[in-house]
Amino acid sequence: MSGAIARRCFIGDAPVDAWPADDRGLAYGDGLFETMRAHRGDLPWWRAHWARLARGAERLRLPLPDPHCVRQAAQDLLGGEGGVLKLLVSRGRGGRGYAPPVPAVPAWQVSVHALPPPAPPAGLVLRWCRTRLAAQPLLAGLKHCNRLEQVLARAEWDEDGIDPILVQEGLMQGIDGEVVCATAANLFVCRDGQWLTPGVERNGVAGTCRAWAIRALDARVARLQVADVETAESVFLCNAVRGILPVARLEARSWAPGTPSQRRVVDLRARLAAEHPAFEMEMS
Amino acid sequence: MSGAIARRCFIGDAPVDAWPADDRGLAYGDGLFETMRAHRGDLPWWRAHWARLARGAERLRLPLPDPHCVRQAAQDLLGGEGGVLKLLVSRGRGGRGYAPPVPAVPAWQVSVHALPPPAPPAGLVLRWCRTRLAAQPLLAGLKHCNRLEQVLARAEWDEDGIDPILVQEGLMQGIDGEVVCATAANLFVCRDGQWLTPGVERNGVAGTCRAWAIRALDARVARLQVADVETAESVFLCNAVRGILPVARLEARSWAPGTPSQRRVVDLRARLAAEHPAFEMEMS
Repeated sequence: MSGAIARRCFIGDAPVDAWPADDRGLAYGDGLFETMRAHRGDLPWWRAHWARLARGAERLRLPLPDPHCVRQAAQDLLGGEGGVLKLLVSRGRGGRGYAPPVPAVPAWQVSVHALPPPAPPAGLVLRWCRTRLAAQPLLAGLKHCNRLEQVLARAEWDEDGIDPILVQEGLMQGIDGEVVCATAANLFVCRDGQWLTPGVERNGVAGTCRAWAIRALDARVARLQVADVETAESVFLCNAVRGILPVARLEARSWAPGTPSQRRVVDLRARLAAEHPAFEMEMS
Repeated sequence: MSGAIARRCFIGDAPVDAWPADDRGLAYGDGLFETMRAHRGDLPWWRAHWARLARGAERLRLPLPDPHCVRQAAQDLLGGEGGVLKLLVSRGRGGRGYAPPVPAVPAWQVSVHALPPPAPPAGLVLRWCRTRLAAQPLLAGLKHCNRLEQVLARAEWDEDGIDPILVQEGLMQGIDGEVVCATAANLFVCRDGQWLTPGVERNGVAGTCRAWAIRALDARVARLQVADVETAESVFLCNAVRGILPVARLEARSWAPGTPSQRRVVDLRARLAAEHPAFEMEMS
């Protein structure tokens, strides 16, 4: 968890001093967000993030602010620096009751956060979360603000006395037992030399780094059971802030570095760093 | 939809002028709410509402403010009048990342709203919503702030060109097709003289008025299919703001007033009005 270094809030195109207390994002989680890796004051994956935001806005019939206005606000806030840029867009002010106001004026904010600590060089240590993800095709794939399942999953570290320094992420299953993702990252596994990642039609988030990795690895979308992950030749996580994250261990299963598929993960990190210079520092 | 007549915001025990922009309620819907019928400046079902809030807070490991402080703030805001009192409690300020801050200081607000327009004297007209409710046992029953499913269901009125004056509510099914509830009310049906209501173990909200009606009618919790509702002898909805709401029609199916089970709904309304004087005016 990292607090914001700076933040600016807007309603429509106008900057505001405070977030509205009658905001529907607050009342119902009626909003979307994007978490972007910033590099030298810019957002290299801006187009992919905005495209996902637009898909979510279309699905929720949520109005979006002007993208030029948002990008300018983000760049003003970054001031030439890197880090994490979070954008949150809600349906804006509304009264009591679920019916969306028509027309709605979006409330939105951009905030800059410090980068998370780098992943352990040997790879992440993972656990299985007990919290399962409900199947909701209408919301699947979107980065919406209904995230209590992820909050419950992360709260398991405290409940179970797990040290987040030693166990950095957790894999989540859907209600039906199929493996979906990590709490804040997508999952890829290599089986018989083929890279696989779970679909995002019933739950999960259509990650921007996931889309990049699918193309880079010619990965297939596949249904994965727990045993498919535990017996995989290699496993990695990815997200737009941390890039490609090799996995060293999942509960009792460990993956030794230096196997052919583990080397492919290292190669993938190098390729991402070459295409997206923000991730270069991760390679050191 | 009705805007607030008045609102007050707090962090912990301290009043604040503005809602915090880094609030987890906003970021993740990481909060709970209660919507209460106020009568002459008081909240007759306060104990039931606070008990549900406390159950939700325990499930989410969410800190609650002092109940005396909250009730006093609500009464101050009501100033002796009636209406609708909404209480929203979030996990409070937090940084980026799903892990709940420990300890957390709750942010909360009370707001007063006008009563919704009275239900049509002949009974409500209902439709079937297309949006289905995901099954999530960890969140079922709670009045949490992850309400995008309800927002999508209510947005169907606009999508389908349905006049909310003519069709006032919609019934929702779970992903598996079983009937769960209305978008903002619980459902009761009478079959073979026995009142039945869906369970709230997989989805839905454990309504305070639902609990009252289960006791008053000696109702049974039962799994209901669409046909069970459409062929019922009588149907009503209920919630804590509007009390008992007779149903006149559901799509092509209509229920004539004056049948024995419809008269039992009228009797139930009278009994609620006798126990809870705020609902007396609904009887006129």
